[in-house]
Amino acid sequence: MRFTKMEGLGNDYIYLNCLKEVPEDLPGLAVTLSDRHFGVGADGLICIRPGRDGDFVMEMYNADGSRGAMCGNGIRCVGKYVYDNGLTRKTCLTIDTDAGPRSLRLHVLGGQVREVTVDMGEPKLSPPVEVQGETVYPVDMGNPHGVIFCPEPEKIDLEVRGAALGRDPAFPGEWNIEFAAVEARDRLRVRVWERGSGPTLACGTGACAVLAAAVKTGRSDRRATVALPGGELKVEWERESGRILLTGPARTVFQGEI
Amino acid sequence: MRFTKMEGLGNDYIYLNCLKEVPEDLPGLAVTLSDRHFGVGADGLICIRPGRDGDFVMEMYNADGSRGAMCGNGIRCVGKYVYDNGLTRKTCLTIDTDAGPRSLRLHVLGGQVREVTVDMGEPKLSPPVEVQGETVYPVDMGNPHGVIFCPEPEKIDLEVRGAALGRDPAFPGEWNIEFAAVEARDRLRVRVWERGSGPTLACGTGACAVLAAAVKTGRSDRRATVALPGGELKVEWERESGRILLTGPARTVFQGEI
Repeated sequence: MRFTKMEGLGNDYIYLNCLKEVPEDLPGLAVTLSDRHFGVGADGLICIRPGRDGDFVMEMYNADGSRGAMCGNGIRCVGKYVYDNGLTRKTCLTIDTDAGPRSLRLHVLGGQVREVTVDMGEPKLSPPVEVQGETVYPVDMGNPHGVIFCPEPEKIDLEVRGAALGRDPAFPGEWNIEFAAVEARDRLRVRVWERGSGPTLACGTGACAVLAAAVKTGRSDRRATVALPGGELKVEWERESGRILLTGPARTVFQGEI
Repeated sequence: MRFTKMEGLGNDYIYLNCLKEVPEDLPGLAVTLSDRHFGVGADGLICIRPGRDGDFVMEMYNADGSRGAMCGNGIRCVGKYVYDNGLTRKTCLTIDTDAGPRSLRLHVLGGQVREVTVDMGEPKLSPPVEVQGETVYPVDMGNPHGVIFCPEPEKIDLEVRGAALGRDPAFPGEWNIEFAAVEARDRLRVRVWERGSGPTLACGTGACAVLAAAVKTGRSDRRATVALPGGELKVEWERESGRILLTGPARTVFQGEI
């Protein structure tokens, strides 16, 4: 079986072309292949299937075999995969995900996709809440986020503090927690604790949540770079549409056969 | 560049055929390729080069780019690599390593190597020492080990206790620490704290050190299975030669091109 390992901001998945054939037991395959010592090693498995309403379907499995709905870093790689492998010539695509359809714009250079812009939809903001002595800004990006502004996210013990806040009874079902520093009106520095994963290199919906909270509280412009441990994302909250556009890199690491 | 990812007991390396050509800057390549999110992901890089005195040379680089001398799990995969890829038809091989030559016996089934026996040389045992309240049996297998017998290695906080003991001033330059339970005279259960790495899935020289200490103290027979978190090794301390033979699996995970 041929596969491609791709990454966006260090968020790495194994990509399978399932346009013609779909392997059996995808959850089991995700567990086996994702193992970083006994398998290929990845955050999970993404199958690219023929589109129903949209151009393609992104079917995502986490490393534990559970189904993932949507991943901002992963969907950018789907855009790169289908274009670079000649499965489409379009540079504006709709990808169906379990969280609904997503619009992608591919930025092509030298025949290959370098960056992808994803329409992440409209953020839903709620009034701030005080939890464990912190002012937390709740932002729903399809998944729940709690944004906390602080001068030095690097100094936070994310394993401990992220888990304590994310699992606080104030946030039923666990929330993702972002610690964000405002470096300039167009630059935010963020560390993320992801529910189910712990500290991660990058989180697309988290970057959007931070920008939304920063704009809402007058801390930043509507367009800013969000620097995460895994790299940088460009985030824009469009005034007219109310939607957030997320632009970031997508990279093919290697092709493999297993 | 083509590569092969192989593993023995979860100890995984990227293997390069360097018989004809050797890529530039192998330390840098090891760092880039070993990264588990932005690269292929591995414990390091092993280049197979033409033999000088022996059949082949195993040139090993750790994930941080530093040179590794020898790895019991890695050298078994070297044996499998050269046989399965038709680089030799011999099933008894000598591989040159930075720690000296090593003799391998390949166990072939259906045209492919399944297990490999490695002559790990003679253990050097020293009298037990009392350190931090533990009775530690020092065994030199080319690298220094401290073996501690206890009923339940699983209950040890290896990160904390292994580090404290391994870095004790009694063990200059850091030692590897093994916590070993004797399940039967032919079965030992072991967890290893490796200097420079912390808790690992398996350690070949550690398994040998444990058997040597167990035999020396009358706890086990000269031939035993050593169960490690990553899998099982068969270890035999030959009476006649005084040498330890280590037998274990070697597996090709996938072929890749980067």
